[in-house]
Amino acid sequence: MVRFGVIGYGYWGPNIVRNINGINPDMLAAVCDKSEKNLGRVKKAYPDVHVTTDASELLTDPTIDAIAVVTPVWTHFDLARRALQNGKHLFIEKPFTATAHQAEELIELAERNHLTIMVDHTFLFTGAVRKIRELIDNNTLGKLYYYDSMRVNLGLFQHDVNVLWDLAPHDLSIVDYLIGREAEAVIATGAGHLNGHADVAYMTIYFPDSVIAHLNVNWLSPVKVRTTLIGGENKMLVWNDLEVDEKIKIYDRGVKITNQEGVYDALVSYRSGDMYSPKVEATEALKLELTYFLECVESGKRPFNDGQSGLRVVRMLEAAESSLKRKGEAVCA
Amino acid sequence: MVRFGVIGYGYWGPNIVRNINGINPDMLAAVCDKSEKNLGRVKKAYPDVHVTTDASELLTDPTIDAIAVVTPVWTHFDLARRALQNGKHLFIEKPFTATAHQAEELIELAERNHLTIMVDHTFLFTGAVRKIRELIDNNTLGKLYYYDSMRVNLGLFQHDVNVLWDLAPHDLSIVDYLIGREAEAVIATGAGHLNGHADVAYMTIYFPDSVIAHLNVNWLSPVKVRTTLIGGENKMLVWNDLEVDEKIKIYDRGVKITNQEGVYDALVSYRSGDMYSPKVEATEALKLELTYFLECVESGKRPFNDGQSGLRVVRMLEAAESSLKRKGEAVCA
Amino acid sequence: MVRFGVIGYGYWGPNIVRNINGINPDMLAAVCDKSEKNLGRVKKAYPDVHVTTDASELLTDPTIDAIAVVTPVWTHFDLARRALQNGKHLFIEKPFTATAHQAEELIELAERNHLTIMVDHTFLFTGAVRKIRELIDNNTLGKLYYYDSMRVNLGLFQHDVNVLWDLAPHDLSIVDYLIGREAEAVIATGAGHLNGHADVAYMTIYFPDSVIAHLNVNWLSPVKVRTTLIGGENKMLVWNDLEVDEKIKIYDRGVKITNQEGVYDALVSYRSGDMYSPKVEATEALKLELTYFLECVESGKRPFNDGQSGLRVVRMLEAAESSLKRKGEAVCA
Amino acid sequence: MVRFGVIGYGYWGPNIVRNINGINPDMLAAVCDKSEKNLGRVKKAYPDVHVTTDASELLTDPTIDAIAVVTPVWTHFDLARRALQNGKHLFIEKPFTATAHQAEELIELAERNHLTIMVDHTFLFTGAVRKIRELIDNNTLGKLYYYDSMRVNLGLFQHDVNVLWDLAPHDLSIVDYLIGREAEAVIATGAGHLNGHADVAYMTIYFPDSVIAHLNVNWLSPVKVRTTLIGGENKMLVWNDLEVDEKIKIYDRGVKITNQEGVYDALVSYRSGDMYSPKVEATEALKLELTYFLECVESGKRPFNDGQSGLRVVRMLEAAESSLKRKGEAVCA
Repeated sequence: MVRFGVIGYGYWGPNIVRNINGINPDMLAAVCDKSEKNLGRVKKAYPDVHVTTDASELLTDPTIDAIAVVTPVWTHFDLARRALQNGKHLFIEKPFTATAHQAEELIELAERNHLTIMVDHTFLFTGAVRKIRELIDNNTLGKLYYYDSMRVNLGLFQHDVNVLWDLAPHDLSIVDYLIGREAEAVIATGAGHLNGHADVAYMTIYFPDSVIAHLNVNWLSPVKVRTTLIGGENKMLVWNDLEVDEKIKIYDRGVKITNQEGVYDALVSYRSGDMYSPKVEATEALKLELTYFLECVESGKRPFNDGQSGLRVVRMLEAAESSLKRKGEAVCA
Repeated sequence: MVRFGVIGYGYWGPNIVRNINGINPDMLAAVCDKSEKNLGRVKKAYPDVHVTTDASELLTDPTIDAIAVVTPVWTHFDLARRALQNGKHLFIEKPFTATAHQAEELIELAERNHLTIMVDHTFLFTGAVRKIRELIDNNTLGKLYYYDSMRVNLGLFQHDVNVLWDLAPHDLSIVDYLIGREAEAVIATGAGHLNGHADVAYMTIYFPDSVIAHLNVNWLSPVKVRTTLIGGENKMLVWNDLEVDEKIKIYDRGVKITNQEGVYDALVSYRSGDMYSPKVEATEALKLELTYFLECVESGKRPFNDGQSGLRVVRMLEAAESSLKRKGEAVCA
Repeated sequence: MVRFGVIGYGYWGPNIVRNINGINPDMLAAVCDKSEKNLGRVKKAYPDVHVTTDASELLTDPTIDAIAVVTPVWTHFDLARRALQNGKHLFIEKPFTATAHQAEELIELAERNHLTIMVDHTFLFTGAVRKIRELIDNNTLGKLYYYDSMRVNLGLFQHDVNVLWDLAPHDLSIVDYLIGREAEAVIATGAGHLNGHADVAYMTIYFPDSVIAHLNVNWLSPVKVRTTLIGGENKMLVWNDLEVDEKIKIYDRGVKITNQEGVYDALVSYRSGDMYSPKVEATEALKLELTYFLECVESGKRPFNDGQSGLRVVRMLEAAESSLKRKGEAVCA
Repeated sequence: MVRFGVIGYGYWGPNIVRNINGINPDMLAAVCDKSEKNLGRVKKAYPDVHVTTDASELLTDPTIDAIAVVTPVWTHFDLARRALQNGKHLFIEKPFTATAHQAEELIELAERNHLTIMVDHTFLFTGAVRKIRELIDNNTLGKLYYYDSMRVNLGLFQHDVNVLWDLAPHDLSIVDYLIGREAEAVIATGAGHLNGHADVAYMTIYFPDSVIAHLNVNWLSPVKVRTTLIGGENKMLVWNDLEVDEKIKIYDRGVKITNQEGVYDALVSYRSGDMYSPKVEATEALKLELTYFLECVESGKRPFNDGQSGLRVVRMLEAAESSLKRKGEAVCA
């Protein structure tokens, strides 16, 4: 059995704690948060769990095997390093770290100590993303052309990061997972209208073989949108994560260049066929992910959402940040 | 009365001809097209109109007052210059010209000869865009934050231009009309998957005062989308041009920074109020535009969609083209 | 070749004329309408066609083989009878006649004279209805449970009929075609708010084996709805005729009684599977129907949308009318 | 303070208990359920509350002021009668009773003992229904024409009632609240396909002055629909309860008879104006309702959702049941 210490019980922490407790209450050793009020919520829901405002207690507790770090990104490196130094496995919120350099240091430390790092790229465990990955793996979509995501809503502003660091990690982890290649270049543009940080931003990521990803993230949208278009040579799909029943629609549609002559003639043939919406598994993603974490820790298997995948996401964020500052100049990720 | 010679009867020309004829059949003097088949269609619909494959006939006909150029963009400059040299007013398809330099030359020529140039930015005459402009002018939206458009569908590929030159002019003319400022910088990214030209492209335009415009254009989308978000300090709107009855929805929603303290606290207050969908005028845009052209020609008034506005759109396209080639480097428009 | 005389050039007549002309201009012999203005529209579009305000000219013209009756329902019987008496085949608008008795008389007359009657149940020739019929014929849906249609919009009020006679024939012809059984009983309810005729009405049709059809027709709806649910033992479908691309969605969903014990336990098992939207043929229904009419006339084959199917629809309307007057009393169709 | 005994902790009971506890934990005296498993759930969530499988304990406990009856309808009468006989106020699930006669007896008993009966017509406390009522009261809609509701989904079958008793009470309580008149006649049709009870049913209710209500309820629909059209002389509205943000849309649309001449002429003028979607209050309906119950109990004020309103709903259900058996014969409610 893996015993967890969870650091951070703000917005996302309660979900981590609830799922650990749901899998096996004995795995939930202790919860730490700086706010007594938050700890009060822990005590009410889980009267038997040890709570503390002192992270060191958890980080040094010899009965704790794994630390879940569920705190703001600027605190990740220090907490994660101490966890790994003390021989604890690490389950850590995304984005993994505030800089690529920090991520590299943590990866090296984990390898030296034979510890597992899993970055909480929760979306990879949703029924929707697993289904899309399956459609790519079994060549239903064919060669990938583009990934184009719109992730916009009203607020929630954070004072310490811009909209890219808040909303882009979701899609970046998915892009990394689905495309499976290193980004060649990252371009970001955007603007800030309220507190100096960009609240509207656009990010293009160039991958090899003309695969392109684009992210539209926005804290100032009057409506909430969570829609991704994915184009492939064989089929294309629309993933609308706000749909309850038909999250993914696969279109048997495409274009094919058939001749190059004639001005204003259609140079392509269109294929317009059926649409198909597969049932998407509804199991809670975080539950699957934590179960997978346990499996990795116990077997020593390296998770696919390991430190390296966390690092690739951080590199893309760093590159985007840098490009954004230079008004869209291409930056290598 | 203004007598028109129309050059080009392919995809859009029939709409121009039909509207001129609809306003006053006597205004329709002649139609030219290189294709005899297209001219056959003209004769069938308008038996009394003179048709020819020779543009010079129209360009030199002393009974013709205005030339409508409805041909591919790479032919615009030559036809337009000859029209203006022969003292004809000019109604010309968008994009105005293939280069900013050509546009400047035509503008100068028209001024010298006291002739009217109107660039066919049809969208500016739709009920939707006129309503949005009204909402800006009467300060309903308040200070503009962003214009974010998605204009995607399957094909129609053109062999001589990329997707930017095909789909972006619509939004660029609207952006120019609504924002009313010179662009500061243009960044474009994209990729081509079929015939070498970009078939997926993204364009960011920086305007003064943190106003930002973004265009998502795509010939490889399985679904057709024509949706624009416009954010303002007071209100925000969604314009879905595919909706029949509720094209524009105005949201009384917004965010306001209220304090800067506390980590992970909401730093903004949200305003979530009513939604309102005004009735949008359904008169055909092109009919309004041609009527306005007549009014400008007859009164000597300069149209707001004049050569200068055509030039600004071409400059943004040129800048985008240049940025796209350099993978997103910022280019001054 | 079959030469047509078309009587009636109001709302629907132009579509009949356009399609006959499209199949073969020589088939369009003459068009009759009481309005000189309407005949003017015919002349403009089809300069070579004979026009007249006198229906007798067409009904007695020996060079005319078939009469298309496209006039209000109360004129159908007299025109159709004279056409059949003069040896003309009959293509007639729905509803076939104003009473079942009239329909029976016309059917008998046609049989005696070996003439074809086709009632213009256009919807049966749409890609959507043909696809649904296919899904029933190949047992994809399984045993039919219900057909539930909503067909509502704002106006167009007619002074001579209520909303049932205006909107219900569409669904009644489809119900007759898909279910293929005689109705056992018809119940109609409704209310009139403006000119004395019912403008909101509901119609239930009981068929054998617990198959039930329901129609919701309404001239006073703020929104236009054209949605039909069809439930079967194996699958269920939603047909939204206002959708451009995904008119039919087939759901692999169902319920199955599994036990009868326990209060407040679910007594059924649910099947929640994929959804599939087949491509629906886009050929104009009326063109297919008129081609089928020609085929039937030339081969002597009896069309499935013959006088008998027209009669069954009229019987259901008569029964509904009668039930409506008695506030919903069941009436045998 | 009012101390509650809650009888029934199945599907809806937990919401009652949670809200009572949320208003004031001291008000929650005891919970009764026949299932030990359900009582275990109570103990886990509310360790201090007394639980029992014996309803008599609650019904006779002198420290309990009010009984909430949250059990199947066939148990209502007996439990409610005993509660009232023992001087307890009554908060009772809808439908109020299994027969109108039972309802009348309970109403009389409550009056004699000066006790409050509130029937849990929860929907009347939702932001949507309160907004619609406001639009009627302030004459925004004008004279009511019709109420037309579609409430369909897949299952949940109940072995003891048909779909009318399960799904119709919601709309009947709303219809009763909005129209505020006694029904003149009720017509119901429907069919059962699985366990003998109707699983698809349609109900028309005639009110004075040509106001008509129609309910479409269905346990065999592949999709979930919760949409109501309400037509009025001035405006019409669409209430889609599945929408998160725009539940109510008010249309400035209508028809007006303007002349009675001419065949096939439009006999009405259409008004097609703006659409407006007011923000709808999001407070939990049940919390408002229980707060209102407390207010009524403490002040002696008669609630608008009293026994009489419960009785009117039961009468309409009884009439529908009776009509359904006679295949749609009109039955006085």
